[in-house]
Amino acid sequence: MASLKRLLIGSPMETKRLKHEKLPKWKALAVFSSDALSSVAYATEEILLVLMLLGTSVFFYSLPIALAIIVLLLVVTLSYRQIIYAFPSGGGAYVVARDHLGTTTSLVAGAALMIDYVLTVAVSISSGVAALTSAFPALLSWKVEIAVLLVLLLMILNLRGITESATVFAYPTYLFIISVLVLIAVGGWQLWHEGWNGFNHKEHASFEHFFTSGYSMFILFRAFASGCSAMTGVEAISNGVPSFKPDCSKNAALTMGWMSVLLGTMFLGITILATGFGVTPVEHKTVISQIGHHVFGNSLLFYLFQLITMLILVLAANTSFAGFPQLASIIANDRFLPRSLAARGDRLVFSNGIILLSVLAILLIILFQGETHSLIPLYAVGVFLSFTIGQGGMVKKLWKDKKRATTLAMTMAGMIATGLVTIITIVAKFTQGAWLVILSIPLLVMMFYRIRSHYDNLGEQLKLDEQEWESREKVMKPKVVIPISGVSKLVAQSIQYARSISGDITAISIVFHEEEEQKLRAKWERFYPNIELKVIYSPYRTILSPMLDYISQLEKETMGAPITILMPQFIVKKWWHTLLHNQTAIFLRFFLILKKDIVIATLPYHLKE
Amino acid sequence: MASLKRLLIGSPMETKRLKHEKLPKWKALAVFSSDALSSVAYATEEILLVLMLLGTSVFFYSLPIALAIIVLLLVVTLSYRQIIYAFPSGGGAYVVARDHLGTTTSLVAGAALMIDYVLTVAVSISSGVAALTSAFPALLSWKVEIAVLLVLLLMILNLRGITESATVFAYPTYLFIISVLVLIAVGGWQLWHEGWNGFNHKEHASFEHFFTSGYSMFILFRAFASGCSAMTGVEAISNGVPSFKPDCSKNAALTMGWMSVLLGTMFLGITILATGFGVTPVEHKTVISQIGHHVFGNSLLFYLFQLITMLILVLAANTSFAGFPQLASIIANDRFLPRSLAARGDRLVFSNGIILLSVLAILLIILFQGETHSLIPLYAVGVFLSFTIGQGGMVKKLWKDKKRATTLAMTMAGMIATGLVTIITIVAKFTQGAWLVILSIPLLVMMFYRIRSHYDNLGEQLKLDEQEWESREKVMKPKVVIPISGVSKLVAQSIQYARSISGDITAISIVFHEEEEQKLRAKWERFYPNIELKVIYSPYRTILSPMLDYISQLEKETMGAPITILMPQFIVKKWWHTLLHNQTAIFLRFFLILKKDIVIATLPYHLKE
Repeated sequence: MASLKRLLIGSPMETKRLKHEKLPKWKALAVFSSDALSSVAYATEEILLVLMLLGTSVFFYSLPIALAIIVLLLVVTLSYRQIIYAFPSGGGAYVVARDHLGTTTSLVAGAALMIDYVLTVAVSISSGVAALTSAFPALLSWKVEIAVLLVLLLMILNLRGITESATVFAYPTYLFIISVLVLIAVGGWQLWHEGWNGFNHKEHASFEHFFTSGYSMFILFRAFASGCSAMTGVEAISNGVPSFKPDCSKNAALTMGWMSVLLGTMFLGITILATGFGVTPVEHKTVISQIGHHVFGNSLLFYLFQLITMLILVLAANTSFAGFPQLASIIANDRFLPRSLAARGDRLVFSNGIILLSVLAILLIILFQGETHSLIPLYAVGVFLSFTIGQGGMVKKLWKDKKRATTLAMTMAGMIATGLVTIITIVAKFTQGAWLVILSIPLLVMMFYRIRSHYDNLGEQLKLDEQEWESREKVMKPKVVIPISGVSKLVAQSIQYARSISGDITAISIVFHEEEEQKLRAKWERFYPNIELKVIYSPYRTILSPMLDYISQLEKETMGAPITILMPQFIVKKWWHTLLHNQTAIFLRFFLILKKDIVIATLPYHLKE
Repeated sequence: MASLKRLLIGSPMETKRLKHEKLPKWKALAVFSSDALSSVAYATEEILLVLMLLGTSVFFYSLPIALAIIVLLLVVTLSYRQIIYAFPSGGGAYVVARDHLGTTTSLVAGAALMIDYVLTVAVSISSGVAALTSAFPALLSWKVEIAVLLVLLLMILNLRGITESATVFAYPTYLFIISVLVLIAVGGWQLWHEGWNGFNHKEHASFEHFFTSGYSMFILFRAFASGCSAMTGVEAISNGVPSFKPDCSKNAALTMGWMSVLLGTMFLGITILATGFGVTPVEHKTVISQIGHHVFGNSLLFYLFQLITMLILVLAANTSFAGFPQLASIIANDRFLPRSLAARGDRLVFSNGIILLSVLAILLIILFQGETHSLIPLYAVGVFLSFTIGQGGMVKKLWKDKKRATTLAMTMAGMIATGLVTIITIVAKFTQGAWLVILSIPLLVMMFYRIRSHYDNLGEQLKLDEQEWESREKVMKPKVVIPISGVSKLVAQSIQYARSISGDITAISIVFHEEEEQKLRAKWERFYPNIELKVIYSPYRTILSPMLDYISQLEKETMGAPITILMPQFIVKKWWHTLLHNQTAIFLRFFLILKKDIVIATLPYHLKE
């Protein structure tokens, strides 16, 4: 086991090697944008999938929807640029809300973020596998297995401590940006020459169509909400300001701008191509792969494009492996999550958080059978809820600090926009899975509070005050009880030890047949005439209850003097030998410790064979 | 858990309630013969299934094969009747072989018997379910589940301690005997009137046919070996002689005679009907159910007959639930099996043996998908091997005791006959699964010996001799080490206890950051200026290895004085609270006890909330 662990995750690292790297802009763009940029691989498809409920005749209107989302992106970008300048120390929605909006709000943000991190892994990996199976349909029947393997691979890499800032991680992002831009350029050229053969607003249903019925309106909003999945991950840069080279804020704001421009261009371009080529969503072939196939044909370029798409999506999942354990450790340090999530493992990463994230993501992938479309409805709620709360906290801070009105206005606009999207998403996707998230968030918050209250209680109970400490200074010798089943070296060793700690020793033996007492006493007298032997007959052949009874009685008699049970335990050489001995001692120890205020001393006897 | 256990198996019983019932002959016949008599439900079918390899033209020759088996039954019955008189104390093949043929032979018999007991459960239950599904084919797809449930039911009943001597268990045996006799009478009458429409030696292949090719000969022997499954369980009465009312031997011998007559009649009758009606084995309908259908038609009687057949087969399985745990406890008392198999549970039965038998039988049923035919080839080898060894032991004893020549001759004839059948079975069924049994027996014997050698070694190591005991009389105060992580009530309580047992106390704290030492020391000085505090910086954030290093060093310094690690441990109120605390103390305790010769004293601190 230990050597397998070493092989997979490497040798332990000293605490001193913990360091924080500063990133140049080009690398920071790759590191912090992979999650956001990779969303273009599925966002257009999600819009079309919803519109399909009204028929392909309304597919043209994916374009205005995409434009609306780009406007939203603009608002949010401007808001976050202000935030970057106002909060150069970074800090995600949880920290900001904790410091400015109170505990409960911050825990809501924390819960929403944690759910989102898990969903980012599940959605990105599922989507990455969909890119792969679109090119290689033979792998379709293995998609859940491939997705699970990818999560496990990310888990191992992150347990090793490959940081998201490794240069090798920058390439796929740029490869993806370049290939999508090439796709858009070549595709645009084709559209220009071959003409707009796809969906057209003149030949099909008119825009007014949407307003003729409530259902159509509802679908329009739902399509918008689905498309908003393009915006997941845009906040990453604002959380990572301290990682930029100085001047941090300026560099981060610049990078944020670049990211938004790239995201908007890619998203719009892909949506235009989908509409222009008349791509409709089909099973087992993603929309972006259909566009890729249309543009590149069956050439090697197409397969390359699919592989690059998969790579960026896996990389997007990897960002959660940095974010989730970090957030969990912050929440755990605030004592709302188990302490173990705040402990750094062998390789200085928050191993338990990494493992927890992997397990949850794998469960989601298996539960939803690796279907991106089933996972997306769960996705946007948490993202926009945490956007809203994060910006809400910023607004309050900016207000208190009496910052410039334009700064405040921009941030507030962002907050209102994302708040509206949150509500639209909840309403439009409630029955499709959003309810699950809406239900989970309060449950998680309740869990956070219960954990905190346990820790608080514990601290209160264990706090040592001077007064009590004085009263503890009296010393009483313990009464030592040795359970025995016969006279052996084990017993001899125990009695020798017992004599070293106390003068008050009783051996106790529990027998199942009354005849056994005489035999035992005779032998005992020969070796230990000076030590009291108590023999108890157990009519029901149990050891535990007569033992508990005896100790209860002893507690009354000794009146507060500590009782120590000295348990001889022999340690076998081979694992299977344990099957040959009854484990009464272990049970006894377990129950006594649970029920009684007595010390249990285990005295090991190491067998030679 | 505890209350579920009470509900299923009832309240514990006192050891004094252990008693041995004496059975009248009519009840003894039912109790000890269900295994043997129930075999007629599948024995004929097993013969036909083998003959089918040569085509239905040879089916008539199931009759001479059945006659040969009845002759064998006669020989074995006569042999066992002698044994009943010579060994009124009963005793199965294991005990007889142990006392007269040496340890290894007895262990071979023990292994064969244990395998057989497991197979009896698997075969009888599978066969019982086949009787049920022959009448109700709708249940076919659930046959494995039904079989597993029946085993679990038998397990619970036997854990409750329903003895096989309960009167209620006598009825199914008599019901089965009566219904088979009625079947034979009515069927015989039908044959007489409607004529012999089945297989005929004149119209079909002649008997000489078998001797024309080696393969046909081989099949003939294999059919005979399969048919011998009819004889499984005939030894039961000879093992149970002490359970008979006086005069035990006479009554047992009489009952043995009756049982053989009934078994022979039923087996022959069923084989005649199968041949006369021209029944051929088909999937999902047992041969005996086809006969039943032929005789009773689609009437209620047919369904009743199937239910009774199922009942007797379940009852036959139940005999193993008496035999296996008993045998396992005898072998365990000889220290060839884990001691726990010799311990009586709450209800005075050998609970562990019952559970082990159930688990093994369920595994076999699942592995062989509840197919009686796949299990039968494994069956006969062990049965006849233990017959042979048992009778071999008897022969030796009779020879030594200089008993009458006829007695000796009869027993020897039985031994030779069953020995031959053993060899025939091994050869004829080797490739069909007998090899598995042939392989398992030596493996089990090896396991027996290894277990015994562990117990012997243990006894040797733990034996206390007077000389060594003298040298242990010197008393040295222990050095107490208290691992702490801060100053709390937990620590206060530990130090108070430590002071009561020794004057030499060191607190040890392992820190992950060097800065922590100052803070801890300052607080420590305030409360415990007189107690040494050792702070160890662990660069790799592990507790275990610096702890082990420290103790190794301490062992050198203290030169033989006992070291005691005092571990404060707080006990949480709710199970999920354990998730909120790291379990370092438990790991630490586990490893220290495994590696070091030191006492680990656990001091519980019970939390209030």
